Amino acid sequence: MSWLDLPPGTGFGVDNLPYGVFSAPGTARRTGVAVGDAVLDLAAATGDDVHTTGSLNAFMARGPRAWAALRAQLTGWLTDPAHRGRVEPHLRPLSEVVLHLPVEVADYVDFYSSRHHAEELGRVLRPGTPPLTPNWLHLPIGYHGRAGTVAVSGTPVVRPSGQRKAPADDAPTFGPTQRLDVEAEVGFVVGVGSDLGTPVPLTGLAEHVFGVCLVNDWSARDLQAWEYVPLGPFLGKSFLTSVSPWVVPLVALEAARVPPPAREVPLLPYLDDTLTEPWGLDITLEVRLDGELVSRPPFASTYWTAAQQLAHLTVNGAALRTGDLFASGTVSGPEDGQRGSLVELSRAGERPLVLPGGRTRSFLEDGDEVRITATAPGTGGGRISLGEVTGRVEAARAS
Amino acid sequence: MSWLDLPPGTGFGVDNLPYGVFSAPGTARRTGVAVGDAVLDLAAATGDDVHTTGSLNAFMARGPRAWAALRAQLTGWLTDPAHRGRVEPHLRPLSEVVLHLPVEVADYVDFYSSRHHAEELGRVLRPGTPPLTPNWLHLPIGYHGRAGTVAVSGTPVVRPSGQRKAPADDAPTFGPTQRLDVEAEVGFVVGVGSDLGTPVPLTGLAEHVFGVCLVNDWSARDLQAWEYVPLGPFLGKSFLTSVSPWVVPLVALEAARVPPPAREVPLLPYLDDTLTEPWGLDITLEVRLDGELVSRPPFASTYWTAAQQLAHLTVNGAALRTGDLFASGTVSGPEDGQRGSLVELSRAGERPLVLPGGRTRSFLEDGDEVRITATAPGTGGGRISLGEVTGRVEAARAS
Repeated sequence: MSWLDLPPGTGFGVDNLPYGVFSAPGTARRTGVAVGDAVLDLAAATGDDVHTTGSLNAFMARGPRAWAALRAQLTGWLTDPAHRGRVEPHLRPLSEVVLHLPVEVADYVDFYSSRHHAEELGRVLRPGTPPLTPNWLHLPIGYHGRAGTVAVSGTPVVRPSGQRKAPADDAPTFGPTQRLDVEAEVGFVVGVGSDLGTPVPLTGLAEHVFGVCLVNDWSARDLQAWEYVPLGPFLGKSFLTSVSPWVVPLVALEAARVPPPAREVPLLPYLDDTLTEPWGLDITLEVRLDGELVSRPPFASTYWTAAQQLAHLTVNGAALRTGDLFASGTVSGPEDGQRGSLVELSRAGERPLVLPGGRTRSFLEDGDEVRITATAPGTGGGRISLGEVTGRVEAARAS
Repeated sequence: MSWLDLPPGTGFGVDNLPYGVFSAPGTARRTGVAVGDAVLDLAAATGDDVHTTGSLNAFMARGPRAWAALRAQLTGWLTDPAHRGRVEPHLRPLSEVVLHLPVEVADYVDFYSSRHHAEELGRVLRPGTPPLTPNWLHLPIGYHGRAGTVAVSGTPVVRPSGQRKAPADDAPTFGPTQRLDVEAEVGFVVGVGSDLGTPVPLTGLAEHVFGVCLVNDWSARDLQAWEYVPLGPFLGKSFLTSVSPWVVPLVALEAARVPPPAREVPLLPYLDDTLTEPWGLDITLEVRLDGELVSRPPFASTYWTAAQQLAHLTVNGAALRTGDLFASGTVSGPEDGQRGSLVELSRAGERPLVLPGGRTRSFLEDGDEVRITATAPGTGGGRISLGEVTGRVEAARAS
């Protein structure tokens, strides 16, 4: 299908074409598209200065027609051998480039859209009470996170310090978190903003969202538990949120669209997607700890879709901006091996994970490396990759 | 003290010199300094392109030495008559310019630092339970708000719609908020960022914070009440946050520094300000509803200072960026006439405010205009003004 010698089973075939920002020795940051083991230098190949700005924002702001036009052009270039001479000089081996944060993040919103995650967390953390809060089935719960600490995959995870208080203690103590966790999530990147006062309808996802990435919303569970009542998570999350370097265009996921789970209660009209095209997405995540597969969360099991999240986020008139990032919240499936966080996988430490060599893990230890990857059905019949988001834990710094 | 003919009692004397962004017919947005009834066009007066960027961010990023140098220069210009000929051509009447959002807001954090507010809200909303959550006296509770909907004073307040559920109802309903409220707050604008992983100590406020503004964190109490458990306020706040157009330099508030309230419990070292110079600030706010003074919240009564807020915000290693805005949360004093929100002033509607003509208000109605102003002791012996933040409520839009 391509004149390129693509590696067998590559997730970066011509039906994917994810966008990222890279630099190579001697070049400033620029936009590229991943194909096979290479990155196509869009700045050089197209001559369009929009690809030299160091983030995808300016290109994303051009909107869906511009996205489609460039995608069609790239598809032509990479499939018709007549273009080989023109395109090949602008391909660089991925192994020779450095990948950067692809998007200048405007606002970052994190949802809580996996019912299996919310219920399991409720069972683990609040036994004896209903696992879901009364609002959960009526709206996609979300909150704003810290946009300034969203960083690209590979950024070191310095163990954060802060206040935590065990139930038996009279007062909080200060120190490095003892419950450092991961949250495997799928993120949606807004390309086209919206006006203050104008909600985006359920059908508006593809007009606003440029693409999809992977998110690891690192969490310090002990800090979070002490601080989060009544205004929500703050320092337990704000030290770092890692994202994958490649943003997969929403249109590349057309073959992954599936119906979302059945709705247990009737939804208010602005969230009722029973008569719209479904925006469930059959993305399978994989979470590895020091190389060992510890979980395979199925994103298709997520209760609230990205279309519902976007409609909810804007229903009060809140404006969107180019670069807004909203994430699904931890993706967990119904099975033990499908949980997207360690607090679920280890039942808050009651049942530690056993790793090769007999090592056990309830939460992350210094030196641990977490790698989240994902694939989905592509339009070419195989599976496309969402790349990876990784991070290695470093010891807390002396304060 | 100045060769300028300053209006008697002006809050914009030469001991204030707040920065803002303005435009006039035929000019692009540029930085100005308010003095008396005029704005000094800094771009024209200094010839420095940093003042033509349309926000204060680039100037703020230069840091405290640059801020002090320009302030010294401006003070000289405005007090020594020898400079009159040079400066006067660059003064424009304030009445002839349009004021814009002064800062490109990076991350917006809202704290909950007034004990009187937290306790009164607890008494009103959760009668029979302890008014403060167990963490309140140990840390300044805060959360991230939506940076993209921070707007300049005067921006219309379109009544937001969303989900709300009365306790007696089985399911939520959708519609315009019936409990639109104000929150009178003081905001702190970060000029100099910090590195990921490096906390800012209690003594670091003046190295990072450029100045102070007024904030009205408009709130839809019914939306908020239904959505906020467990992840905090979201759509109940994200439709609009208004800020005053003038950012008062932190150094202009030197004479307003006062000790904060006595601490009821010992604080962890990173928050313990008993041995540091105090950062309580004797700012008196005034809240007017359709011109009627309804409250005079005293900021000096706020429990947690901005220095403590900044130390807490970064203690987990979260980075700061130029343009970060953090606000105090609603400022309320201990007296009835000192509450910074209508939910407190009307006891959630049980005791409506009575306005001239016998009108009553529990929450805002369409057409209502809210105006928040504030003054503080200046270094010149009088009082300096923090300007004003206003907004008029418009009817909900058909959805």
